[in-house]
Amino acid sequence: MPELSAQLCLMSKNILLKIQYDGTNYSGWQTQNNAKAIQDTVEAALSVLHKGEKIQLIGCSRTDAGVHALGYCGNFITDLSIPGEKFAFAINPLLPEDIRIVHSEEMPEDFHARYSVKSKTYIYKFYPGTFENPLLRNQAWHIKGSPDLEAMNKAAKEFVGTYDFTAFMATGGYPTTTTRTIFDASVTVDPQGMFTFSVTGDGFLYNMVRIMTGTVYYAGVGKISPESIKDIIASKDRKKAGVTAPAHGLYLFKVNY
Amino acid sequence: MPELSAQLCLMSKNILLKIQYDGTNYSGWQTQNNAKAIQDTVEAALSVLHKGEKIQLIGCSRTDAGVHALGYCGNFITDLSIPGEKFAFAINPLLPEDIRIVHSEEMPEDFHARYSVKSKTYIYKFYPGTFENPLLRNQAWHIKGSPDLEAMNKAAKEFVGTYDFTAFMATGGYPTTTTRTIFDASVTVDPQGMFTFSVTGDGFLYNMVRIMTGTVYYAGVGKISPESIKDIIASKDRKKAGVTAPAHGLYLFKVNY
Repeated sequence: MPELSAQLCLMSKNILLKIQYDGTNYSGWQTQNNAKAIQDTVEAALSVLHKGEKIQLIGCSRTDAGVHALGYCGNFITDLSIPGEKFAFAINPLLPEDIRIVHSEEMPEDFHARYSVKSKTYIYKFYPGTFENPLLRNQAWHIKGSPDLEAMNKAAKEFVGTYDFTAFMATGGYPTTTTRTIFDASVTVDPQGMFTFSVTGDGFLYNMVRIMTGTVYYAGVGKISPESIKDIIASKDRKKAGVTAPAHGLYLFKVNY
Repeated sequence: MPELSAQLCLMSKNILLKIQYDGTNYSGWQTQNNAKAIQDTVEAALSVLHKGEKIQLIGCSRTDAGVHALGYCGNFITDLSIPGEKFAFAINPLLPEDIRIVHSEEMPEDFHARYSVKSKTYIYKFYPGTFENPLLRNQAWHIKGSPDLEAMNKAAKEFVGTYDFTAFMATGGYPTTTTRTIFDASVTVDPQGMFTFSVTGDGFLYNMVRIMTGTVYYAGVGKISPESIKDIIASKDRKKAGVTAPAHGLYLFKVNY
């Protein structure tokens, strides 16, 4: 019998899923406030695939209600004989159309979607205009004013480095440390006038990317100076940073392992 | 009394509204199949603004269920003293968030949103990929294969001119003439791989832009040759043209008066 269970164990595979989702109709990755969670929805599909067996899907991070993902990552252990890269095709027909598995592969036994993360990249989309574009109402932040791209980039660059980012953390998160390393941060604009703030770091505090976005926007419209970002970080005072940009402009873009 | 009504008549204004909408949750511009129509929804807002008076909003054209607009135009007659350009601001708070008036102005008495049209521009968005992007599921067509941009542009250019476009008309439309003039047609691709078919004409038959898009796509993946477009037009045979692209990738982009 010990040999048999060793054999079963050897047969099990660790599968990585790369997931895209429209977060509009969800409570976020995880369950909160009784709304439907992405995690529960994908786990329900996995359970159907596993003939009713409960499958735990480990996610790379929490995401707030309304936040989207272009490259969310999760992993689960399975005994199914489906090849790793075929799971995406097997799971998608079991999912609602606002969630799609866009890649799957078998990973080493010790791979963990959260603990193995080296860095994550988020993007945040925002655009100026007299009126909100109804087609973008759930996918980008409609801002007032005409922010200056250069000022926003100057401000974004000030985030790069290892700092205590307490000034960029909303209450409600209880991290063991408030120090994070930002590897890259920049703002671009496309021909239609859509701004994209892109930030890569080893981790992010609660609402950190949304507060960074609001701060970059404030720098763009002259409400704060790009040069004051370092002082804001040093102050550890949330009130000194910019507004918290709304959830619906934020996308988990890529997880690097 | 005749003088009084002449005076009232002089006070009335002809207002043009430029409208953006996400057509996902509507039956189209006009009422059909008991679903909610854009026209009814904007007229209801106009009625509130006019203290319950029924206001008729003349639209530039019908649009199918699920079709979007970035520059739909309509006009209505009003006795309100609001300056023309302020109507957008007055109406928007009375509309659901998937419809926005993005411009309003007073027009000459004889302006008519449909009869005064010189040309209209539609755009159609489509993209390749193994899996559908859930964030685009209501806003662009997810296609199979990797269409060739040059072949699609060659095909698009063949539409330019004055032709009987019966081969590009779905049953259900009953036009007095099936001849239309296409002024311009082209396909572009953005850095994310999104294709946009753009077409400007003096008018369009029922489903004409969607059938043109399907035909351009067929040319892109080699199912028809760009050189055969003229023969397809001459055949007046719907079966010779490409697939009807789905409604949700289509946008009424601009109306030229």
